[in-house]
Amino acid sequence: MSLEKQPNAVDLSRHLSDMAKARQTSPLKGLAKYMGRPNMIALAGGMPNPGYFPFSTISADVLVPDSFPVSSSSQSSSLSWLWKIFGAGSKEKTTSVSIPKYVKNPRDDVNLATALQYGTATGLVPLQKFLHEFVSKVYQPAYADFETLVQTGNTDGWNRAALTLCNPGEVFLTEEWTYPSALSSVAPLGITAHPVPMDKEGMRSDSLRQILEEWDEAATGKKRPHVMYTVPVGQNPSGATMGYRRKKEIYDICVEFDIIIVEDDPYYFLQEGVYQPKSARTRKDSPDDDISHYIAGLVPSYLKLDYQGRVIRLDTFSKTIAPGSRLGWFTCNAVFAERLERAGEVSTQAPCGFGQSLITSLLLNWGFEGYVRWLRGLGAQYTARRDFFIDAFAEEFDLDLSTGQSGAWRGCDVYLATEKVKPTGEMSEKFALTARRPLFSFVPPTSGMFVWLKVHFENHPKFRKGDDSNEMKLWIALAESGLLIAPGWFFAADQEDSPDGPDDGHYRIAFSFNDFDDMKKAVQIFGRVVREHFKDN
Amino acid sequence: MSLEKQPNAVDLSRHLSDMAKARQTSPLKGLAKYMGRPNMIALAGGMPNPGYFPFSTISADVLVPDSFPVSSSSQSSSLSWLWKIFGAGSKEKTTSVSIPKYVKNPRDDVNLATALQYGTATGLVPLQKFLHEFVSKVYQPAYADFETLVQTGNTDGWNRAALTLCNPGEVFLTEEWTYPSALSSVAPLGITAHPVPMDKEGMRSDSLRQILEEWDEAATGKKRPHVMYTVPVGQNPSGATMGYRRKKEIYDICVEFDIIIVEDDPYYFLQEGVYQPKSARTRKDSPDDDISHYIAGLVPSYLKLDYQGRVIRLDTFSKTIAPGSRLGWFTCNAVFAERLERAGEVSTQAPCGFGQSLITSLLLNWGFEGYVRWLRGLGAQYTARRDFFIDAFAEEFDLDLSTGQSGAWRGCDVYLATEKVKPTGEMSEKFALTARRPLFSFVPPTSGMFVWLKVHFENHPKFRKGDDSNEMKLWIALAESGLLIAPGWFFAADQEDSPDGPDDGHYRIAFSFNDFDDMKKAVQIFGRVVREHFKDN
Repeated sequence: MSLEKQPNAVDLSRHLSDMAKARQTSPLKGLAKYMGRPNMIALAGGMPNPGYFPFSTISADVLVPDSFPVSSSSQSSSLSWLWKIFGAGSKEKTTSVSIPKYVKNPRDDVNLATALQYGTATGLVPLQKFLHEFVSKVYQPAYADFETLVQTGNTDGWNRAALTLCNPGEVFLTEEWTYPSALSSVAPLGITAHPVPMDKEGMRSDSLRQILEEWDEAATGKKRPHVMYTVPVGQNPSGATMGYRRKKEIYDICVEFDIIIVEDDPYYFLQEGVYQPKSARTRKDSPDDDISHYIAGLVPSYLKLDYQGRVIRLDTFSKTIAPGSRLGWFTCNAVFAERLERAGEVSTQAPCGFGQSLITSLLLNWGFEGYVRWLRGLGAQYTARRDFFIDAFAEEFDLDLSTGQSGAWRGCDVYLATEKVKPTGEMSEKFALTARRPLFSFVPPTSGMFVWLKVHFENHPKFRKGDDSNEMKLWIALAESGLLIAPGWFFAADQEDSPDGPDDGHYRIAFSFNDFDDMKKAVQIFGRVVREHFKDN
Repeated sequence: MSLEKQPNAVDLSRHLSDMAKARQTSPLKGLAKYMGRPNMIALAGGMPNPGYFPFSTISADVLVPDSFPVSSSSQSSSLSWLWKIFGAGSKEKTTSVSIPKYVKNPRDDVNLATALQYGTATGLVPLQKFLHEFVSKVYQPAYADFETLVQTGNTDGWNRAALTLCNPGEVFLTEEWTYPSALSSVAPLGITAHPVPMDKEGMRSDSLRQILEEWDEAATGKKRPHVMYTVPVGQNPSGATMGYRRKKEIYDICVEFDIIIVEDDPYYFLQEGVYQPKSARTRKDSPDDDISHYIAGLVPSYLKLDYQGRVIRLDTFSKTIAPGSRLGWFTCNAVFAERLERAGEVSTQAPCGFGQSLITSLLLNWGFEGYVRWLRGLGAQYTARRDFFIDAFAEEFDLDLSTGQSGAWRGCDVYLATEKVKPTGEMSEKFALTARRPLFSFVPPTSGMFVWLKVHFENHPKFRKGDDSNEMKLWIALAESGLLIAPGWFFAADQEDSPDGPDDGHYRIAFSFNDFDDMKKAVQIFGRVVREHFKDN
């Protein structure tokens, strides 16, 4: 059903910021009526003749969709695949795409005369069609008349969405740990985050309800938030994945408290499932090749629940094609889409035509099924990387499984890392006393690119309560030893040093980039430096 | 000399807006120290391994730099060149560029592993180098330590510059007719334009001084502007070109009143010189091939005068390579550059890597001299187009040269267009009475893509003072007859219907896009519809 025809349609326009309302409607509206007409001579826009574009043809060799296997659990074969991509003599299987300047049907077929010309902020027509079909089949929005609209990556997407929804000085809700640029992009307008506590599925629904019910406008001096920014899959930095039930709970609360959800979901196709220790990992030799089974196995997007049109979903090609694509898209209702388009027209305009045309050609070459096949292979790669990286920790430390007792990890399967008990040789008395105190702990990510861990500085022999210098000290010691990871304070939603804020000692480590040798070395450096740090007495 | 070492260095930081000041410094600063180190294993950023980028190689066939002749005045040959670019059987001369995923020296040589990865908001290193050299040799800034920094086109550039300099509610100065998106991008923050009257060189210095001297903060409720947005070459929409002397006058006033100049200069290389009627056009058979003579012949940028670092220059590849490039750059002082970079990091991040790498490869293939040769050829094409288009008006109407008496055209060579006196046949009495009243007038552009003309509705037999419906009526009649041009009200800096504002009846017509047949047809349609409009009595 279309949104407008819902029996109790929500007034979405009242969520628009004053800035968004003040944006003029398209000045081209008067012209639009005439623009499509045949035989019209258009001398209105300042467009160069495509004959002056110095690019005659652009071609690319692109990997085939099944370049990576769909299963990560068959470890030996997945490893050989993983190695393959780094080896000098590796033989990739490629196919080629080519974009000429002129084509017979410039509206439907990708061509440089169109892609390199001024274009609309909604994107190239064949790309729009592909994205609309993709969203429809994969995310299955709860209403029929959703719109898709390109942007230049989810940072631009969030920025544009935030200024479309929030007035200066307003507060939005987000996970207690979050993507730093989401905070710093809107901070100059005095738009700040209110952190919501997390657990293994990311944002907690009970905490969200509590915050909203207890919001005190007089005490805070701030209106109750009406916007939420959330990364529900492969949450950055924690790696948590939010399932259907939690999303439903949060969506219903957002209906109750009239909140717009901005769903930033770059890691959606990097769903890795629950980590199994190497010994317990089962071998799956005949993966299910059915696309609909694969799609049904992914956690649903908020769009699937969104019968009121209160979700702006942000998708990006940064993790599925390449970050340099600087291309992604919004999926949302028509009211927001129109305002987001206007905001695009006067900032980035259309995304880069080189990128749009190359990515569109790739997607059309692969087709919907091919692209889904690519995404499956990619997901399997990240699963294998996650498994390899955590296996490496298991080799470097003794990992004991326990159930988290407090904070964001309450109820989670937490791995406590302690110094490895030497299999042979003697153990000093001192070592015996301290060895079983965990040095750090982590919850293995179920999606995404990162291991988010907490070093237990409180177990350091010289630890004094209130001393928060350890996080940077250890970080510098790691960097001096040749390992660069991200310190936790980058990701705190509450950037003030608040006693109620998340505690320190966190680090985010990416397993997305390096080859396996380096990942192994990294864990060894980490082990050595952490052990040294704890021995510093 | 570097800016800092100037004897009377200006405090530039006090021009930063509260928003710009509130932007955090780079969160990567702490990491930066370690990032370049050899043998560092970097697991801090969320970067995918380039093995997962589905693009293995990208190639392009690109035109050679001397694809177009440097002279437009040899009409027959320039016409044949102009035709050539549209003909189906045209033989372009191309060379080919290719971008592999991996190269030996990834910092200096363009490669996909770098270009398609997350990158800095300053741009690819080889592109930065090219741009810095280009600015240095072509614009010759007055101080040594200027910086260049990429953006995604001048609309993004102006948007970022405006929010870096202006607080909400502030007023900036601009030409009385201007680029509409420059106004609408900042309008939502209550940042508005104060129009400065123009003449044949664009913004008038005497008017600027008068506005600033007479600015009444109490009466206007607004602080005197400290920012100017100007399009000094091929001014949009008027096509005016500002010479050295006028720029110097305006720069000196900006020093006196402490104003930052944002120089938006997309048409800089489309300098066409003064229009000469066809019969008077001289034939230049041996154009001067010396690059330094060509550069010296261009009007200087404000950068050349900018001994105080108060200019932010915006350059774009939209008109010189292709609009879909969505790539341009700032040139400015280090204080502004740092803030503009931070603003980029949390919005568009780096410009698209496909575009950056392809354009960089093109520029490196051509080299500095090749690119300048390309720009010369392009400029000659636009000169030939301008000449052809105005010649077409001369064939359709009687054009009488006169000197403008008032308003923006005072002192200009204005062409008054009257109905062509039928060379043979009879002339009705009525026709004789009205024929010599000009239907419209224009000043031929000296740069850029547009003819800006004014229809003299006041000469319509049924004209009543105060009736401003004619502009849209004629526009619709033209569109219904198959000709789309841009109505003048789009471009009024003063968007309120002010009695002091520019009068109506203006249209902007682009000669940049269409082939010559269509340009000719367009002028014929224009002629027919305008004549009909004036006969409507």
